Amino acid sequence: MKTREDALALDAADPLAPLRAQFVLPDGVIYLDGNSLGVLPRTTAARVQQVVQQEWGTGLIRSWNSAGWMDLPGRIGDKIARLVGAGAGELVVADSTSVNLYKVLSAAQAIARADAPAKKVILSERSNFPTDLYIAEAVAREHGCELVLADWHELPDRLDVRVAVLMLTHVNYRTGRMHDMELLTQLAHRAGALALWDLAHSAGAVPVDLTGAQADFAVGCGYKYLNGGPGAPAFVWVHPRHAERFWQPLAGWMGHAAPFEFKPGYRPAAGISRYLCGTPPVVSMAALECGVDTLLAAEPLGGMAALRRKSIALTRLFAELVQARCGFGGFTIASPLLDDERGSQICLSRTGGAYAIVQALIARGVIGDFRAPDILRFGFTPLYTRFVDVWDAVGHLVQVMQHGEWQRPEFNVQHAVT
Amino acid sequence: MKTREDALALDAADPLAPLRAQFVLPDGVIYLDGNSLGVLPRTTAARVQQVVQQEWGTGLIRSWNSAGWMDLPGRIGDKIARLVGAGAGELVVADSTSVNLYKVLSAAQAIARADAPAKKVILSERSNFPTDLYIAEAVAREHGCELVLADWHELPDRLDVRVAVLMLTHVNYRTGRMHDMELLTQLAHRAGALALWDLAHSAGAVPVDLTGAQADFAVGCGYKYLNGGPGAPAFVWVHPRHAERFWQPLAGWMGHAAPFEFKPGYRPAAGISRYLCGTPPVVSMAALECGVDTLLAAEPLGGMAALRRKSIALTRLFAELVQARCGFGGFTIASPLLDDERGSQICLSRTGGAYAIVQALIARGVIGDFRAPDILRFGFTPLYTRFVDVWDAVGHLVQVMQHGEWQRPEFNVQHAVT
Repeated sequence: MKTREDALALDAADPLAPLRAQFVLPDGVIYLDGNSLGVLPRTTAARVQQVVQQEWGTGLIRSWNSAGWMDLPGRIGDKIARLVGAGAGELVVADSTSVNLYKVLSAAQAIARADAPAKKVILSERSNFPTDLYIAEAVAREHGCELVLADWHELPDRLDVRVAVLMLTHVNYRTGRMHDMELLTQLAHRAGALALWDLAHSAGAVPVDLTGAQADFAVGCGYKYLNGGPGAPAFVWVHPRHAERFWQPLAGWMGHAAPFEFKPGYRPAAGISRYLCGTPPVVSMAALECGVDTLLAAEPLGGMAALRRKSIALTRLFAELVQARCGFGGFTIASPLLDDERGSQICLSRTGGAYAIVQALIARGVIGDFRAPDILRFGFTPLYTRFVDVWDAVGHLVQVMQHGEWQRPEFNVQHAVT
Repeated sequence: MKTREDALALDAADPLAPLRAQFVLPDGVIYLDGNSLGVLPRTTAARVQQVVQQEWGTGLIRSWNSAGWMDLPGRIGDKIARLVGAGAGELVVADSTSVNLYKVLSAAQAIARADAPAKKVILSERSNFPTDLYIAEAVAREHGCELVLADWHELPDRLDVRVAVLMLTHVNYRTGRMHDMELLTQLAHRAGALALWDLAHSAGAVPVDLTGAQADFAVGCGYKYLNGGPGAPAFVWVHPRHAERFWQPLAGWMGHAAPFEFKPGYRPAAGISRYLCGTPPVVSMAALECGVDTLLAAEPLGGMAALRRKSIALTRLFAELVQARCGFGGFTIASPLLDDERGSQICLSRTGGAYAIVQALIARGVIGDFRAPDILRFGFTPLYTRFVDVWDAVGHLVQVMQHGEWQRPEFNVQHAVT
């Protein structure tokens, strides 16, 4: 691509372009951080007001029935199921990704070891998102398992008979590398292990077919590509062949077979409902539903497959433009260059300056994020990112590097970022 | 009390009466269910809009720092701490009550048994709220403990050397019976056990002094007397003497010492922060803060002590009026008649008809709730319940009983209620 007009022409020809109108996007911002926090859908504010003022304020306790609050975990779950290749009634929204991971990892190791007690290993990737590794470490400590970490290319070899569970994040949070879910699940099963997938950077970003891949367990995040709002509740899926084999330890009343009988003695609900725990945060749930709906709106336009085609075009264009226009910047493209191995993000690495360059870009309205120690991460959300945004973002990066803008002191004061 | 004018006179003389203006109360409703779901504060809708439209919509990912989202668990926690006799920095808002209970019960049994490995019993009350018992059952199963249930008056005798943890809900959800927290904690300690208190029906309802009682662990609910909205996040407190003795199993990244270093290897944060797990639901957290603020607004008027005096007057009046005006109704007062043994609710029991009578009252705009199998439960929230509401509620109950209104078929179709 040679000119900004070329990018505008791609946008003009993009059949998904109208989907952008679903969102509130602040002026002067090119938002390449939908993989950290998705943007605000236009419907959310009004829906949240309705929940707060009518359903809570006026309906009060009656709204658990009359406004369908009780149904939210399953209703939104069924919508997300359509995005990840799961069946209706197989997936629920609940708690956080970390909490859900604890539930399914507890289940996975118990089920695998019930069939083969000598299995003691939870195998994961060294560069998996830390919270996944922390939870795995905790589950391993509690159940006398061992957490073994490997680099991504070593995983097939490490899937030996000792492995009870292969626990992976489908798309790596730092590099954007995407695992072959079907192949690795197959290799896991061949080793007698179960496969657990974290879809935090996949759901709403890339096509996922949990059923087709014969996956065993999955969790995912509501506030990234699902546009559910900050800290939106997460989701959990268990293949029906496992759903009733285990009583997950977070045995709260919402997962009980009859929560309103108020009887002592835990009796888990049928199917995936037993993976619910406490009372769900209704206001945040309602916001999540608006976010999920923005993805379902793409279904008549080709759904996740069409979004994926655009996502590949966006990420490929960004990588090409960085190489072509910012070759002097000292960046290495840390994401896979092969489309099939990449999620919906491009990460650049750089020896020194990564944090400050991200800050300088943010000051220019190009919002990506820094991931320690050396990663500049840019997420491309085909629902609302345009080709011209990619062109302009690279233009800003060129400016930041050419004039040494990133070396200004104010961009080098580090504080916590998410 | 003889007449409605007497009730109005009490309201006119009530120094706490102005606090009611903090809330949106629907017309034609006498709400006696703040112990199930607190009412909507006037500030909440605008605050939630600000979070959705400005902080999320415009601030986007930057708001984790610029809007203080990262500080919410501790900031709201410090406010709740003032209501329950905990110190600043000792309490955080996180997850649901059930999830928090799992964390602290895991910790409590581990700490107690580290000091005395032969201890194997988690002791609780047979009529404790079911989710507490379900979680205790799960923790017991996981750690080879035994869950022993007793009636409330048997508890002192059952606190023998085998008990690791005494786990109680301070105010019983069905009867409103309030335990003597200090005494039972002392008895637990004498038996070498730790005391864990669920404050679901206490926080914001009755004065609680966790520090003074030398309690060990506590959890509590955000959506009842704290007015945080449906499914509002819950809270968790650990006495500083225990906070760093245990790595709780829900070891998510928000409880890590340095979550944004993104390093494998869990290293728990100092103090209570290690009881955080995943990313908090920010919109629901913001609503919770508005709710908690409605209680802090009572501090200049005498705080929880003044609210307690009014609560006692309200519940006592309701019990007296039911006995005086509705003696023919076949009700037994299931709540303790001694003020010191009662929380902020009055429960009536009745052989037959309890569900239908609650429905008939709701149809008249008097919202209480039914608790299986035979309980009519009425919560009195001194922040917004007036003496005249008590008078009128009993008047409606008299009407419902006198004319057999509750026997209408439409009041006898049962469905799930919370």
